[in-house]
Amino acid sequence: ITLPAIDAMKSHLLVPKMVFNVAGVPIEWEEHYVGTEVDPRTESFLTWESLESVRRNKVGLKGPMATPIGKGHRSLNLTLRKELGLYANVRPCNSLPGYKTRYDDVNLVTIRENTEGEYSGLEHQVVRGVVESLKIITRQASLRVAEYAFHYAKTNGRERVSAIHKANIMRKTDGLFLKCCREVAEKYPEIVYEEVIIDNCCMTLVKNPGLFDVLVMPNLYGDIISDLCAGLIGGLGLTPSCNIGEGGICLAEAVHGSAPDIAGKQNLANPTALMLSAVMMLRHLQFNNQADRIHNAILQTISEGKFRTADLGGKASTSDFTKAVCDHI
Amino acid sequence: ITLPAIDAMKSHLLVPKMVFNVAGVPIEWEEHYVGTEVDPRTESFLTWESLESVRRNKVGLKGPMATPIGKGHRSLNLTLRKELGLYANVRPCNSLPGYKTRYDDVNLVTIRENTEGEYSGLEHQVVRGVVESLKIITRQASLRVAEYAFHYAKTNGRERVSAIHKANIMRKTDGLFLKCCREVAEKYPEIVYEEVIIDNCCMTLVKNPGLFDVLVMPNLYGDIISDLCAGLIGGLGLTPSCNIGEGGICLAEAVHGSAPDIAGKQNLANPTALMLSAVMMLRHLQFNNQADRIHNAILQTISEGKFRTADLGGKASTSDFTKAVCDHI
Ligand SMILES: CC(C)[C@H](C(=O)O)[C@@H](O)C(=O)O
Ligand SMILES: CC(C)[C@H](C(=O)O)[C@@H](O)C(=O)O
Repeated sequence: ITLPAIDAMKSHLLVPKMVFNVAGVPIEWEEHYVGTEVDPRTESFLTWESLESVRRNKVGLKGPMATPIGKGHRSLNLTLRKELGLYANVRPCNSLPGYKTRYDDVNLVTIRENTEGEYSGLEHQVVRGVVESLKIITRQASLRVAEYAFHYAKTNGRERVSAIHKANIMRKTDGLFLKCCREVAEKYPEIVYEEVIIDNCCMTLVKNPGLFDVLVMPNLYGDIISDLCAGLIGGLGLTPSCNIGEGGICLAEAVHGSAPDIAGKQNLANPTALMLSAVMMLRHLQFNNQADRIHNAILQTISEGKFRTADLGGKASTSDFTKAVCDHI
Repeated sequence: ITLPAIDAMKSHLLVPKMVFNVAGVPIEWEEHYVGTEVDPRTESFLTWESLESVRRNKVGLKGPMATPIGKGHRSLNLTLRKELGLYANVRPCNSLPGYKTRYDDVNLVTIRENTEGEYSGLEHQVVRGVVESLKIITRQASLRVAEYAFHYAKTNGRERVSAIHKANIMRKTDGLFLKCCREVAEKYPEIVYEEVIIDNCCMTLVKNPGLFDVLVMPNLYGDIISDLCAGLIGGLGLTPSCNIGEGGICLAEAVHGSAPDIAGKQNLANPTALMLSAVMMLRHLQFNNQADRIHNAILQTISEGKFRTADLGGKASTSDFTKAVCDHI
């Protein structure tokens, strides 16, 4: 298990370790702190060793990372995605029984293509005052993420996959994405396949999120919709995520930022997203019993409502909450 | 006043006429039906006469239009935007007192750049299996829509303008958009200016839409966010819209589709969006008294809840609802 994480969130890292210990997860941690200086081998604040470690172990848990300000260095998150070929970002989004929001019927999973689209990094000025960005869609990346989505649906007892797009405007790029989804859909006749235009998708999500099951989509739409969905259940502090990469890599992560506003003040962050991400990682490793125990303990702690971190309107510290979870285990 | 509209929605057109008559709005209609055949002068189903009419009158009300299926013809909506230089799409979004949704505190306006971005229409295949779309952002179009947004905020008693972007990824295109917004913001020191990343914006909109006031953004984000916001208050059947074009054109429109599923069945559509759009048009023409009377009558009818169309869970027909509004006037 590899655990790269930026300095500011170091304290956060104790959380999964404590919880895993209590739940008896037989795991040895390999720790990598990143973000202190640029590694010339990666041209970013990511150390070469941290990448090698994830490649070797094929599984990792990543703390929140912010790219230190300073020009010309690649974003930590984007570098990770590129270097490890993290082609699918998976975010299950479920209403938490004990935490009330405007919605109580959210039970969906967003699967985001994670390597191309508007994230190509290809941009230039055509003439003064006219700039362009290239949105790239490839058959290979689209098939790969579509395959993952249908496989996920099938192996997780899900019934429907919705491909989200704007092919009425971007006929060629989003059109290719849809074509690939359709091809894959044919191999999964037991899964219902539908196509939903992104604007309509967002409207339906806020009106009736219960209508969705698994959503698969190009990079930028995934960025937008996964955060929208996180909002439905209470925010990024509660939403787990994992990235599927080449060669079977699974890198779980809390997708919220590194919260620079509270990073100095130890012990304020809500560790739920990181814990739930760790649970996803355990399921990937087939430690299902331990995953269930930890997952239930988290749900119980939230549902009792005694220990709530500041982002959820409570006064509990990170370690209060973590201790409560450990007690429930 | 020009009123182009597709055949299928003809019945819809009686609505504003009836309401305007009752409210004593001194308007003569010029009617243009479009969508029956391709006009070679526009290369689309839009007739040349309809465009000329809007250009001459500088104001219009447009029924929902769907582009008839058939290859190689430009979309009616996109052709309209291009031919009339409709550079800003304005959609006020307010919780309706009588129609309960999960939100009761929505009071915002989305202002969408309407001519460029991912809607450039420039796409091609690079090699087999690799396609690209160009997203274009220009200084001219960005300044123009930013100007409109700040001017709107100032003249409508709004306090804050939020520019929505993804400049952390698209540094050049969205970066240019932001740069233009900042330039304009400096001329309006009385308006608070802020920048919000689109994923975060969508999360905040579903958690706490009351935090927003005026939002200005590039084309695709506007497409997505304006529909999301419509969802917050009940859907596109309730959301008015108007397009601001070159030379002071104001083309009001109901942004929902032409609802092909109910277009045959006369008298089912909810005319609220079209009526509220007509009210926006009246305000543009400075018919403020009449606009107020009609607006209040619509709000009262919805709030009483006796006449509700099918999309809002009721049984009223289009004309039942319209008659109730006329009675309130
Ligand atoms: C931090 C940013 C580059 C990133 C993205 O846009 O992908 C984030 O929003 C996410 O969703 O992981
Ligand atoms: C119909 C479609 C081309 C259009 C758009 O994408 O702009 C619609 O969604 C809108 O918002 O007016």
